Amino acid sequence: MNPRNGLNFSGGPGALPDSVLQQVQEAILCVPEVGLSILGISHRSDWFAAVVTELENNIRTLLELPRGYHVLFLQGGATQQFSTVPMVLLHGKKFPAEYVHSGYWSGKALSEAQRGGGIRVLWSGEECGYRRLARDDELPFSPDAPYIHYVSNETVEGLQFHRVLGRDDVPRVCDMSSDFLSKPCEADRFSLIYAHAQKNIGPAGVTVVIVRESLLEHMPDHLPGFLDYRNHARTHSNFNTPPVFAIYVVLLVTRWLMKEVGGVVRMDQINREKAELLYGLLDRSDGFYCSRAHLEDRSRMNVVFTLATADAQQRFLAEAQAAGFSGLAGHRAIGGVRASIYNALTLSAVEQLAGFMEDFQHRQHRHTRC
Amino acid sequence: MNPRNGLNFSGGPGALPDSVLQQVQEAILCVPEVGLSILGISHRSDWFAAVVTELENNIRTLLELPRGYHVLFLQGGATQQFSTVPMVLLHGKKFPAEYVHSGYWSGKALSEAQRGGGIRVLWSGEECGYRRLARDDELPFSPDAPYIHYVSNETVEGLQFHRVLGRDDVPRVCDMSSDFLSKPCEADRFSLIYAHAQKNIGPAGVTVVIVRESLLEHMPDHLPGFLDYRNHARTHSNFNTPPVFAIYVVLLVTRWLMKEVGGVVRMDQINREKAELLYGLLDRSDGFYCSRAHLEDRSRMNVVFTLATADAQQRFLAEAQAAGFSGLAGHRAIGGVRASIYNALTLSAVEQLAGFMEDFQHRQHRHTRC
Repeated sequence: MNPRNGLNFSGGPGALPDSVLQQVQEAILCVPEVGLSILGISHRSDWFAAVVTELENNIRTLLELPRGYHVLFLQGGATQQFSTVPMVLLHGKKFPAEYVHSGYWSGKALSEAQRGGGIRVLWSGEECGYRRLARDDELPFSPDAPYIHYVSNETVEGLQFHRVLGRDDVPRVCDMSSDFLSKPCEADRFSLIYAHAQKNIGPAGVTVVIVRESLLEHMPDHLPGFLDYRNHARTHSNFNTPPVFAIYVVLLVTRWLMKEVGGVVRMDQINREKAELLYGLLDRSDGFYCSRAHLEDRSRMNVVFTLATADAQQRFLAEAQAAGFSGLAGHRAIGGVRASIYNALTLSAVEQLAGFMEDFQHRQHRHTRC
Repeated sequence: MNPRNGLNFSGGPGALPDSVLQQVQEAILCVPEVGLSILGISHRSDWFAAVVTELENNIRTLLELPRGYHVLFLQGGATQQFSTVPMVLLHGKKFPAEYVHSGYWSGKALSEAQRGGGIRVLWSGEECGYRRLARDDELPFSPDAPYIHYVSNETVEGLQFHRVLGRDDVPRVCDMSSDFLSKPCEADRFSLIYAHAQKNIGPAGVTVVIVRESLLEHMPDHLPGFLDYRNHARTHSNFNTPPVFAIYVVLLVTRWLMKEVGGVVRMDQINREKAELLYGLLDRSDGFYCSRAHLEDRSRMNVVFTLATADAQQRFLAEAQAAGFSGLAGHRAIGGVRASIYNALTLSAVEQLAGFMEDFQHRQHRHTRC
């Protein structure tokens, strides 16, 4: 991190690696190979075509993606995909698509999908207050569903599926916005993966869509052009002017992930270490800090917890902010505290937060249990 | 311009002012007021809310926009608006919307609108090879149309309407992507204006939509959430994660326009001077350079011309590129030469190009007329 800067523990947009920021900073004035600012380079230039090609290839390499997939870079965030997926995949189907409602974001995906009808909620975490995820025996996926949809990591509640859901004979669609490229994900078991950039891989403004080619064979023809994945696939994400800058930053992040980190297996090890450090601290805090999620479903991206009293929590957040730990307030939907520890948030930064948390606990006169 | 850099005469993404690039460069490492990189600041932060408020206000001030309009910052480019406009405004209407087909981009808007039916092409420039625009007596706008649509400046052909089209009793919708904030535009005569950023006001990845509040009263309810202007209006462009970086850059450009340039009237004077310099040179070139557009419809943003022979043209483009004049090749749809001279391309840069063009002409052994 830049020494002047705070540490970004927010739910997103997340931190980016220092080495990436330095390269971006240079590119703002001039990309040396082109002699122009990155903000003014044509999306039709050979240079930008090479950027997209390299980025597509990097993602294929990082995910060990087999042939038969398109890798697209779109606008509109995951929210646009919430609407696009059913428009594309439900058209003319007689059985409903099956959605797992595991938290805030899968709820948003569900609401958008339900506008068109033809959706079945297979399981909802509402009854358990979204403190745990569905077990396999609670998920009776049907072989007739046109697709299943779930969110791999719920940032608000701090829940993460540590396995692939669904059946191999039904197309899997997954919103991986908040854990994409944070670990291996068995990408070849999915028909469609989407992930906005602003957690682990770049700035807000670009969304990666990985779609199996065979899924595009039976698309409806009446879709607006910008929602038709085939247009973006055919043009390598140059159907209309793409967000050149955001795509370039994502390229730099994938280079960092491959060359400096050493790939997603290594990234996963680091992310586990970061998460274990914080969860271990919560578990050893004698009830001073309480983890929200059940043990087996804890997210390695978003560590969500509460303090015993509203007063202690308020003081904790204020002191943390003053000490340079930025964005720790929980999502406005549920409150509490959330430490988001995406790829670029270093182990050292997490250690600093853990040190602060231990110190804060010790400084309290009476340790109240929650 | 940065001395290492070429001069960006491309059709877009266009150049940005040096002073803006310097501020952006600093913000990449750290926005001082926040202590975080601009790429990792929360879109829910007070700081970003203030960015959006100031930007909305700057645009209202620059355009002298009266009350009763929303100013939105969306993703998806003008292309997304090509589809959204008829989805929003044609719903349940019995008369067709009227489109003016003046060139490449209005043709794109038309194609997307025609997917849903209910469109009438009021005039097409096809017969005249898109070398001139419609005269008023060729545009029999109907009082029954739910809206009229046109593109104020055609970047490919270098054509620009120097007046407002349509009738005051029918909502005007205008794609101003390529001349937005380059001059006063009588914004209060329009019901909906849209403009992507990447010509005059910022990087690719954000689109300004200015929409009259009364237009939103009769919108259909079945639209996907991200296409419903009301969601974006209600949340001040924070319905889902907006492109924080691109919006921030647009804010800096509007500050530059207000404080360094002195507003859109002054900007218009400078842009006229730039355009007159180049058109004057074409007209005095004794047929060596031939302007494509008819005199009265010439664009002040895109000066499109040809040279007498394909060979001379090829040499011209190669030598210009080598001399640091970047992006002068005409659009792939029609070829030729195009000097795009958006707001941030300085008079000095245009003078340098004019000098190069005169020199190139003098260096030719035989002056062939086209």
